[in-house]
Amino acid sequence: MPQYQAPTRDIEFILNELLSLQDHSDLSGFDEVNEELVSAVIDECGKFGRDVLAPLNKVGDEQGCVRNPDGSVKTPDGFKDAYGQFVENGWPLMNKPANMGGQNLPYIMSMATSEILSSANMAFGMYPGLTSGAYEALMAGGSDAQKATYGPNMASGAWAGTMNLTEPQCGTDLGLIKTKAVEQADGSYKITGQKIWISGGEQDLTENIIHLVLARIEGAPDGIKGISLFVVPKFIVNEDGSLGERNALSCGGLEEKMGIHGNATCVMNYDGATGWLVGEPHRGMRTMFVMMNEARLGVGLQALAQAELAYQNAADFAVNRLQSRSLQGPSAPDKPADPIIVHPDVRRMLMDQRAFIEGGRAFAYWTALHGDLEHKSTDPAVRQKAGDYMALLTPVIKAFLTDRGYKMVNEGLQVHGGSGFTREWGMEQIVRDCRITLIYEGTNGIQALDLVGRKLAADGGRAIFSFFAEIDDFIGTHDDNAELKVFLDGLREVKAQLVDGTQWLMKNGMSDFNNAAAASTDYLQLFGLTALSFMWARMAELALRKRGSDPFYDDKLITGRYFVARILPEGASHLVKLKTGAAPIMALADDRF
Amino acid sequence: MPQYQAPTRDIEFILNELLSLQDHSDLSGFDEVNEELVSAVIDECGKFGRDVLAPLNKVGDEQGCVRNPDGSVKTPDGFKDAYGQFVENGWPLMNKPANMGGQNLPYIMSMATSEILSSANMAFGMYPGLTSGAYEALMAGGSDAQKATYGPNMASGAWAGTMNLTEPQCGTDLGLIKTKAVEQADGSYKITGQKIWISGGEQDLTENIIHLVLARIEGAPDGIKGISLFVVPKFIVNEDGSLGERNALSCGGLEEKMGIHGNATCVMNYDGATGWLVGEPHRGMRTMFVMMNEARLGVGLQALAQAELAYQNAADFAVNRLQSRSLQGPSAPDKPADPIIVHPDVRRMLMDQRAFIEGGRAFAYWTALHGDLEHKSTDPAVRQKAGDYMALLTPVIKAFLTDRGYKMVNEGLQVHGGSGFTREWGMEQIVRDCRITLIYEGTNGIQALDLVGRKLAADGGRAIFSFFAEIDDFIGTHDDNAELKVFLDGLREVKAQLVDGTQWLMKNGMSDFNNAAAASTDYLQLFGLTALSFMWARMAELALRKRGSDPFYDDKLITGRYFVARILPEGASHLVKLKTGAAPIMALADDRF
Repeated sequence: MPQYQAPTRDIEFILNELLSLQDHSDLSGFDEVNEELVSAVIDECGKFGRDVLAPLNKVGDEQGCVRNPDGSVKTPDGFKDAYGQFVENGWPLMNKPANMGGQNLPYIMSMATSEILSSANMAFGMYPGLTSGAYEALMAGGSDAQKATYGPNMASGAWAGTMNLTEPQCGTDLGLIKTKAVEQADGSYKITGQKIWISGGEQDLTENIIHLVLARIEGAPDGIKGISLFVVPKFIVNEDGSLGERNALSCGGLEEKMGIHGNATCVMNYDGATGWLVGEPHRGMRTMFVMMNEARLGVGLQALAQAELAYQNAADFAVNRLQSRSLQGPSAPDKPADPIIVHPDVRRMLMDQRAFIEGGRAFAYWTALHGDLEHKSTDPAVRQKAGDYMALLTPVIKAFLTDRGYKMVNEGLQVHGGSGFTREWGMEQIVRDCRITLIYEGTNGIQALDLVGRKLAADGGRAIFSFFAEIDDFIGTHDDNAELKVFLDGLREVKAQLVDGTQWLMKNGMSDFNNAAAASTDYLQLFGLTALSFMWARMAELALRKRGSDPFYDDKLITGRYFVARILPEGASHLVKLKTGAAPIMALADDRF
Repeated sequence: MPQYQAPTRDIEFILNELLSLQDHSDLSGFDEVNEELVSAVIDECGKFGRDVLAPLNKVGDEQGCVRNPDGSVKTPDGFKDAYGQFVENGWPLMNKPANMGGQNLPYIMSMATSEILSSANMAFGMYPGLTSGAYEALMAGGSDAQKATYGPNMASGAWAGTMNLTEPQCGTDLGLIKTKAVEQADGSYKITGQKIWISGGEQDLTENIIHLVLARIEGAPDGIKGISLFVVPKFIVNEDGSLGERNALSCGGLEEKMGIHGNATCVMNYDGATGWLVGEPHRGMRTMFVMMNEARLGVGLQALAQAELAYQNAADFAVNRLQSRSLQGPSAPDKPADPIIVHPDVRRMLMDQRAFIEGGRAFAYWTALHGDLEHKSTDPAVRQKAGDYMALLTPVIKAFLTDRGYKMVNEGLQVHGGSGFTREWGMEQIVRDCRITLIYEGTNGIQALDLVGRKLAADGGRAIFSFFAEIDDFIGTHDDNAELKVFLDGLREVKAQLVDGTQWLMKNGMSDFNNAAAASTDYLQLFGLTALSFMWARMAELALRKRGSDPFYDDKLITGRYFVARILPEGASHLVKLKTGAAPIMALADDRF
């Protein structure tokens, strides 16, 4: 079974040194953040992940969730107890505001703890992850009464939240939603319809489940502009806050799937269930996107977390498995063979994983810091830029980290050779669990379309120009740093490719949207490489300054140089591909596939 | 559940038109081969695959194999009956020689039927696949008596064969084998030891199982030069050919694994089992490599076959799933949404799959034809070149087709969105089944080392120079064909990259083997791209001549142009990567991973 140790040193490097959270004490919730607090939180979370959640990861995969004949759902052995500890220890409250009973710590801190939970047990981590998203959506779109009714218990994790979007006939295209909402005399609605693939739609972890449900009010306009959002609790909440009547909704079945068996993926039947409108009628998508954007960052992080888990176990296997000799002569002559880490091709896979994980972690956390800045900065210009970045970078985080993360978990399996394919070693579970991250919360193709179709052009390209300018600033500031040259050269080159690709899109994507769509995935990959290159240049600059005090900084420079030498070269081929336009892709007639 | 239709048109295109088997009637077994025979065989095999094997694919995954307390193993429901039909219909005998009761048809024909079996049911196809490999090894290394004793029943499929290499402490490094062989007075050996991951080690399909077992004779030299090969039947064969005593070997357990559940992966315990030496003592690896080389081609083909299966179902899903509208306006205005095949990013995935599959199929079959030429040509120069090609191309077929094939089955899953992750649609089984192909019969890293460490340098590089010369000849012959220009330009460029990479290896790989090993995987990928580019240029040249008679040829040209425009550009980044040398890969200290 895979072992997991939270990568506390690297997380603390990013939070304390690279992003210097302690320097943002002007932001709400940051005033108490210092290196000691960060270390304490990460250490504690790491222990919880290692000791409580990781041991349940295989149990969850093997047992899965079971739906009882009465529609109730049993999560795997140990999940309920672990969830109880999770709530009791106050983890969900860490980044919630004081008026909800929370500690008001920064959003970026919860990114770090989410990473740890997802590495230790991705299926488990989804329960609080979705609750957090549903909570944020209610806070963003709900009435004061709704916030008061559901907020505190969702903030603490006493109640769970879900998001109900998909129906059998619609996943990506939510305009096709058929679930109906009929207004009642008391202002509530009766919700009727079937939702599928609802993560945590039913479970035995919490005493109530607050479903956020997209539905169409009778007489609403067709399509996406007729979709409203409703809050539909499993148990109606009485005025005094106690739980009342069981609502007319139920889990009609569990989906059998490739992985994340420990998370209950439910068919949810709403049979005239009582729900309340969240926000304005027909504007449900707007609020749901609050949830989806948070969820998309979370999904990118899940893949990164699975890559970390796979890497740790692959590295461990590589230093312990004895097989063959080094090509340069025995490295362990006293043993029957050398550890396979002596082989360059094994090490190539491990270095690929490190370079991705460390760069991707910096990228995800740096983006999350903009989430804090967007909401908490007192400077409108900072808020605007941070908001621009969040919008621009969310699809990149989601798709780039999951595409690459999935490749990396497969590399981790590959390092294990035949053992990787057996269930015993647990690597194949990591691959199966990670596979969903390329799909849910909008497939990676949808993310790429979002990036080129919406995010690039928004506000006249303000976000991307701001991103380019920040990179140029960094290069300009450090251009005389000879030791940084290899990093700056790499960054300059990949950024120039991204500029080139952006210009191509502006020229060719507007006149023919199919050109933009055809280029979208390669553009997103090129964007991700640029972002990681920027992160690596920043980390290298810091490591060069700090080197000598800790071999950690030397390792960081080695891994960063690997990234520049052996991963960045992929940018060029993405640029060539994105510039082919739609013609080669669309030439074959529909009926000839 | 995935549906499967054998791609008869494309297979026939390659066998009848591209490779013109009918023009090789001077080769033994080719004299009766004509277009009608090819079509009849492929059609018949396609029906067997579609009607008998494909329906058992999901059954096999869900039921898996079961080991009974007595050590016997039950294959999934329906497998035994299907295997009975398979043998009764004479499929295994197709390419066996007349003296074994076979039809003596070309090896390349059995590649085509193997592809179909592997698409329809990979786990099933492994049983006859391994039997075929064991048969070939016995024919290559066994005594006349051994050939007579085991040959006919293995040729017909009445008995199965297995290969027993791996032990807990050794997979890649077979020099570490501990299984012991002790010579007996009658010239037989007592074999004692444990083998793991033995595909088909025990099953209920055949009345006897002929195990080929690597073991160390008492007193043998250490390492790989002390390994001998033994034939160890489950039931001792009496002199009259009837089955005698049950041998002292048994299945000690079944491995739980990620996929290919329908194939029994056994722990095999040899407890003083009676075996007979195959070939000379301590020279077992040589004969085993006959089997492994055949198996490696077969594994490449398995991944191609799974990619074909995934593609068919992804294309079907894409034309039937209605979701969102085309960016260029509704294509199906009478329906609630357009089929998702209108979206460029969906079509990109489908075209990726087509371009890989069709190019990879041509490459695999073209290589297989060299297998026939190597053994059957009357011209020593032809035999030598064909033998060179088989040696050179086998690791490329194995690793390139499985690496890319696995990516492509993942693309097929991705086209399905959330449905791809559910068990119901069966796409996730394809991904799980396909994953082993990157590992078994030598991991892809081992294939890359074999390519750069052994195959390139053999006979002063004769094989690779011959490959380059054949490409140059083709380009020279067709250089005035204006319509072919895009294909020839692409081929010229990627071949130049491969030449560049080869020269780099010759210059830097000899002085430091780690440089060669560090470059090996990227070199192999570049080699594969070059080989597919060559195949696409040849197919395009043919399609340009034949176009007009059948839209098939227009499709072929469209798919080929897609390959050149959108897949070949990856070659450049592989070249840059392979030229980094070992330094960036090896810089991090072993104890810092």
